[in-house]
Amino acid sequence: MQDLVLRNDTGHVARLTLNAPDRFNVLSLGMIDAVADAFRQIETDDAIRAVILSAAGKAFCVGHDLRQMQAARDDDDAGRASFDILFDRCAGMMQMIPALPQPVIAQVQGVATAAGCQLVAACDLALAAKGARFGVNGVDIGLFCSTPMVALSRAIAPRAAFEMLVTGDFIDADRACQLGLVNRVVPATDLADQAMQLAQQIARKLPQAVRMGKRAFYEQLGLDLPDAYRSASGAICENLMLPETDEGIAAFLEKRQPSWAGKD
Amino acid sequence: MQDLVLRNDTGHVARLTLNAPDRFNVLSLGMIDAVADAFRQIETDDAIRAVILSAAGKAFCVGHDLRQMQAARDDDDAGRASFDILFDRCAGMMQMIPALPQPVIAQVQGVATAAGCQLVAACDLALAAKGARFGVNGVDIGLFCSTPMVALSRAIAPRAAFEMLVTGDFIDADRACQLGLVNRVVPATDLADQAMQLAQQIARKLPQAVRMGKRAFYEQLGLDLPDAYRSASGAICENLMLPETDEGIAAFLEKRQPSWAGKD
Amino acid sequence: MQDLVLRNDTGHVARLTLNAPDRFNVLSLGMIDAVADAFRQIETDDAIRAVILSAAGKAFCVGHDLRQMQAARDDDDAGRASFDILFDRCAGMMQMIPALPQPVIAQVQGVATAAGCQLVAACDLALAAKGARFGVNGVDIGLFCSTPMVALSRAIAPRAAFEMLVTGDFIDADRACQLGLVNRVVPATDLADQAMQLAQQIARKLPQAVRMGKRAFYEQLGLDLPDAYRSASGAICENLMLPETDEGIAAFLEKRQPSWAGKD
Repeated sequence: MQDLVLRNDTGHVARLTLNAPDRFNVLSLGMIDAVADAFRQIETDDAIRAVILSAAGKAFCVGHDLRQMQAARDDDDAGRASFDILFDRCAGMMQMIPALPQPVIAQVQGVATAAGCQLVAACDLALAAKGARFGVNGVDIGLFCSTPMVALSRAIAPRAAFEMLVTGDFIDADRACQLGLVNRVVPATDLADQAMQLAQQIARKLPQAVRMGKRAFYEQLGLDLPDAYRSASGAICENLMLPETDEGIAAFLEKRQPSWAGKD
Repeated sequence: MQDLVLRNDTGHVARLTLNAPDRFNVLSLGMIDAVADAFRQIETDDAIRAVILSAAGKAFCVGHDLRQMQAARDDDDAGRASFDILFDRCAGMMQMIPALPQPVIAQVQGVATAAGCQLVAACDLALAAKGARFGVNGVDIGLFCSTPMVALSRAIAPRAAFEMLVTGDFIDADRACQLGLVNRVVPATDLADQAMQLAQQIARKLPQAVRMGKRAFYEQLGLDLPDAYRSASGAICENLMLPETDEGIAAFLEKRQPSWAGKD
Repeated sequence: MQDLVLRNDTGHVARLTLNAPDRFNVLSLGMIDAVADAFRQIETDDAIRAVILSAAGKAFCVGHDLRQMQAARDDDDAGRASFDILFDRCAGMMQMIPALPQPVIAQVQGVATAAGCQLVAACDLALAAKGARFGVNGVDIGLFCSTPMVALSRAIAPRAAFEMLVTGDFIDADRACQLGLVNRVVPATDLADQAMQLAQQIARKLPQAVRMGKRAFYEQLGLDLPDAYRSASGAICENLMLPETDEGIAAFLEKRQPSWAGKD
């Protein structure tokens, strides 16, 4: 049996690849758990400074595994307990991304639909190939994309999200970039390279600063202004006390490279 | 006396029309109550699956009825109680829109100013005719558009909203679309047709899914991530237990139309 | 010794100028206090109706004073108390801007980096010269821009903010405008004039309406919909009870200028 998620490390970058291309990388319970397991390993891996979440084959991810879900309807409770577990597990995996110390970049080709679109929206950053398309089109089969909308409506303007949810219409990569779902659109042939370059750019920063910064970013997002400043001021003062930051600032003032840059 | 709000149903779509074209559909207390009454009827009308909010004449809506407001200044309290009632009633009507089970599409031609712009921002979706203009220009007559800004600053980026509020400047339809106030800009001659097509597209979805989805959308918007996922996971599991959703997914997997599609 | 912040009043507009051009208007503790002092004077100056925050020289502001910060590392606590004071004082100054009764317009040329970019994001409105660039690039020297991100992530879409924070990459004025960080981009030669015109446009409005409106704007931003409407309805009713607003509306209905317009 093939691994559902592949991991390839290049220097300080971990590339995860959803690896069920024949099923368009459907988020079966097995796939959700495999992604969560990969995140769990990366979480404690100090060598990793940035993560790429990519997908094998023509599509990024087409969402939940409808066959698996329909099979659960044969249970005594018509699937209820099974659905509860599935969506609890999936929401848990999605929430691991902002909680992960390393930035996670979605690398998207083909289609990203329903929970696949949610996965893009849940990542910290996203790159899309020209030609990629995004949809939360569960409504077309009678299942409103309620969980995908949690991530989507936090990434783009609310009524743009609502339009996608209620019409089932897809948007292309350029529109996704304009709306803020995707950071950059690149030619399909350059997609993997560009994602790696972005990841390596992040990996060359002082890793502790990136970790503290990512944590501080999500901590302050929902707070009111005074609490957000209190939280962020604590974070930046903690960051300043690092010897490496002392060296980074000193090097900048002396117009030289910091000794930690590129040291490993 | 003419009805202040007209209702025309086409299949499962209700079109409401603000019908005081000679006064540019001013939001008098009577108009506010007429719109609220129409919403109240639609709220419990299971045949209706989508709503278009349109307006007769050259303008969509120019906001509150300044003549009516000035008349209230002759009251013993110089209008204070009357103003409290007016804005309480108006805010109540505006908040009925996200609370309504059916999606509401604003269909905007001409100008939408002050509380008229608020009405556009309060709808779930908005279509504008090329040439439509939007403003919250009460500040020009000494009355800052404080209530319109509640809806506006939730639809577009805060400092774009603040610029409109403090300058009184209008934006055109394309800028409104770029900012996220409007979903689509269409030629003026196609406006009513395009709004109807969008409404019918929504009306062809499984109505229960749309209703659950709309409710879930607004429930999760302001919550923090864990609570939002808890709320949305509950909604999607409830959606999955519908027999129609079972049929919708089964039909999709069997590459056929669901039996509920177009059944009425 | 030269004043760190200059103030020039033109009619009802106060122009503040960060005045350390040889140091690119670095936010030393002295500069932070000088800006805060200027705000404190303006806060109680009823003659002032709009504020321009501009900067002398080639750059708007390059953020905190790294030399001053490094010097604090010689303290017994390696700078900890000094850093706490610096970021507390800076966050306090930034939060004075939304709390100020008058709208504040950032007038940006050259670069606005780190806390300099924060200062732009903290203002109510921003104008940028063609060619201006914005960055939160502390991460490049090992210091994640955690406090700048509080203002930035409230002005633009979260993942656009995160990209800037984690890559250290700059964006140009057009992109800043597209993202909502900047309201307008103008030719460099017109920058000061355009900022003044915008400030004067605001200054010609009824000042009480602008003050009530600005306060109401920030009060309602973070609230849920019912609370936001309650807050804003209170504000607009208070606004309506002003005799000047009575006159403003009456004048509008009678197609004449209000007697308060341009009266001083």
